[in-house]
Amino acid sequence: MTARTLLLLPGDGIGPEAMAEVRKIIAYMNAELGAGFETDEGLVGGSAYDAHGAAISEGDMEKALAADAVLFGAVGGPKWDDVPYEVRPEAGLLRLRKDLKLFANLRPAICYPALANASSLKAELVEGLDILIVRELTGGVYFGEPKEIIDLGNGQKRGIDTQVYDTYEIERIAGVAFELARTRGNRVCSMEKRNVMKSGVLWNQVVTETHKRAYSDVQLEHMLADAGGMQLVRAPKQFDVIVTDNLFGDMLSDVAAMLTGSLGMLPSASLGAPDAKGQRKALYEPVHGSAPDIAGKGIANPIAMIASFAMCLRYSFNMVAEADNLEKAIADVLDSGVRTGDIMSEGSRQVGTTEMGDAILEAF
Amino acid sequence: MTARTLLLLPGDGIGPEAMAEVRKIIAYMNAELGAGFETDEGLVGGSAYDAHGAAISEGDMEKALAADAVLFGAVGGPKWDDVPYEVRPEAGLLRLRKDLKLFANLRPAICYPALANASSLKAELVEGLDILIVRELTGGVYFGEPKEIIDLGNGQKRGIDTQVYDTYEIERIAGVAFELARTRGNRVCSMEKRNVMKSGVLWNQVVTETHKRAYSDVQLEHMLADAGGMQLVRAPKQFDVIVTDNLFGDMLSDVAAMLTGSLGMLPSASLGAPDAKGQRKALYEPVHGSAPDIAGKGIANPIAMIASFAMCLRYSFNMVAEADNLEKAIADVLDSGVRTGDIMSEGSRQVGTTEMGDAILEAF
Ligand SMILES: CC(C)[C@H](C(=O)O)[C@@H](O)C(=O)O
Ligand SMILES: CC(C)[C@H](C(=O)O)[C@@H](O)C(=O)O
Repeated sequence: MTARTLLLLPGDGIGPEAMAEVRKIIAYMNAELGAGFETDEGLVGGSAYDAHGAAISEGDMEKALAADAVLFGAVGGPKWDDVPYEVRPEAGLLRLRKDLKLFANLRPAICYPALANASSLKAELVEGLDILIVRELTGGVYFGEPKEIIDLGNGQKRGIDTQVYDTYEIERIAGVAFELARTRGNRVCSMEKRNVMKSGVLWNQVVTETHKRAYSDVQLEHMLADAGGMQLVRAPKQFDVIVTDNLFGDMLSDVAAMLTGSLGMLPSASLGAPDAKGQRKALYEPVHGSAPDIAGKGIANPIAMIASFAMCLRYSFNMVAEADNLEKAIADVLDSGVRTGDIMSEGSRQVGTTEMGDAILEAF
Repeated sequence: MTARTLLLLPGDGIGPEAMAEVRKIIAYMNAELGAGFETDEGLVGGSAYDAHGAAISEGDMEKALAADAVLFGAVGGPKWDDVPYEVRPEAGLLRLRKDLKLFANLRPAICYPALANASSLKAELVEGLDILIVRELTGGVYFGEPKEIIDLGNGQKRGIDTQVYDTYEIERIAGVAFELARTRGNRVCSMEKRNVMKSGVLWNQVVTETHKRAYSDVQLEHMLADAGGMQLVRAPKQFDVIVTDNLFGDMLSDVAAMLTGSLGMLPSASLGAPDAKGQRKALYEPVHGSAPDIAGKGIANPIAMIASFAMCLRYSFNMVAEADNLEKAIADVLDSGVRTGDIMSEGSRQVGTTEMGDAILEAF
């Protein structure tokens, strides 16, 4: 059997603590299930800046390009608030997405039944919630040029960013959304601002044509992105798969994540196009950030990171049974009343990062 | 006394029905309070397209430029879904904003106590909520050039929009936010994506400098716009004034509006810079849209339109007592249990658009 290669990039803040729990699961799978994972490790974000003066070193980029999959923790923190724009912690993540061509960002917003009461929404609106947000990740205003600040003289500056989408970029992300919808509720809602943005007009057209050409069995709806944000808050269960651009996806997936009440639990996968052998580059990361305020205290919730590894098993290695088991282990541990501080509620048992990881490994 | 001139642009869908209720209040104020309003009327949106082939005619634009204030209903509907981009209903609203130089969009997100239960959020999270979103309205990706779809050949097109902000644009909207904060909770939260957008970097710098230079008595916080969306859902009461750009303001104010549970009640004001005489161009409109599904049925909620007129009294005519009275009349009617269908709840009395308008006029 060929090795399965993983690059671990724990990053900053609570990233390393969360990653440590995944490392235990990998070790277990190698020892007990003969999974054959080979792991390497690198730096990203502020920790890479401190070591190399860049948000990710060339060496680690090479490792990322060579690995079957990258597991990413989190980046950023007040320590690096004033580093130059080009080497800010986020630049490492953005470069990984761009150079690995990870155009499809899958963000499930699910509500763990045991946590429905943790949502700021009324429990009945989120109980059983299971949305998948498919966000375009290598285009749009994140990468379009010009992107600059010009000095106009007289104390005036001009900040410019450019939103660009080509037909093929919209087609391929729409394709991912339709394919995934077929494995779920068979419904896609596409969101843009076609009433204000030309890229939104094109987005709407291309999604419509892609649907007509190859996916007319899937139910397709279009919604303006601002109305989409409203509908997410009003009645999130109306959605199955949402497909949207990089910036709207950033906003909408964060809103969706927060309303599940399960923010500390939500994973994400960023996928490239399949190559000739059907292999795709991939990066897996929690939706939450680096949470510098609680870093190093051993109290961070490792579930999003572990659930991201479950997505890795599913999407990069086709280890579907193992992914299912790991996800079930998470749900079982939650059902048993074990909680980290962020999801603590009366009558539950509060534990730290390590104990939570141990409990999940135990249940796995 | 010089006349107070108002241009009414009822627009499409439920716009005309809602505007009719404001007309009654204007007539009453003229007859009983000697308010001296002179009203003219025009077309905007789909109704203007049907009559003139444009989303607003040159004649109506001239009237808008001449009036002390514009009252705007709502635009759009399925009937005009396929008209060319340049004359789509929204183009009328966008032209009004741009040509009247209405750079400051004030969107209060308040929760009427009588309606706290209508929110999808838990009542305790929204009870007493009172946020003011100050959205930049004449810049950013809404108006930046290039804004186009290019044919690249080979079936490929490219959609482009450009986000542009100059120092002076950020300075003046920040100034509005700080001034307004002083009349309220004295706190401003500025939202952008400085970790991804150069315009966000500039936005952050200019808001910080404006604060230091002239408003250091106001408490200032910065938040990434995606985190801001999350925090609005998690704990909206943490905010007082939020200042943000055109596109983020569009998204965030819609999310904020929805989470009050009072969407059909929320007004907005769009203001220009004061001229030599201290007069500013202004347009007032409900946050909700044209709701084509219920148009013409006499069941639409006119409160947002009436509350927009209250903002008009306050900001365009400095009729503070009258504005207070009108807002109190709305709250009293709600307290008395009178409800349109959209905010109906058990034990309340359901009424139509006209009756709701009458009840508010009665209480005024
Ligand atoms: C860290 C940041 C650059 C990133 C983004 O804006 O994409 C984050 O918010 C996310 O959603 O993954
Ligand atoms: C109608 C549309 C152009 C408009 C906008 O995007 O600004 C609306 O959503 C709003 O928020 O006033």
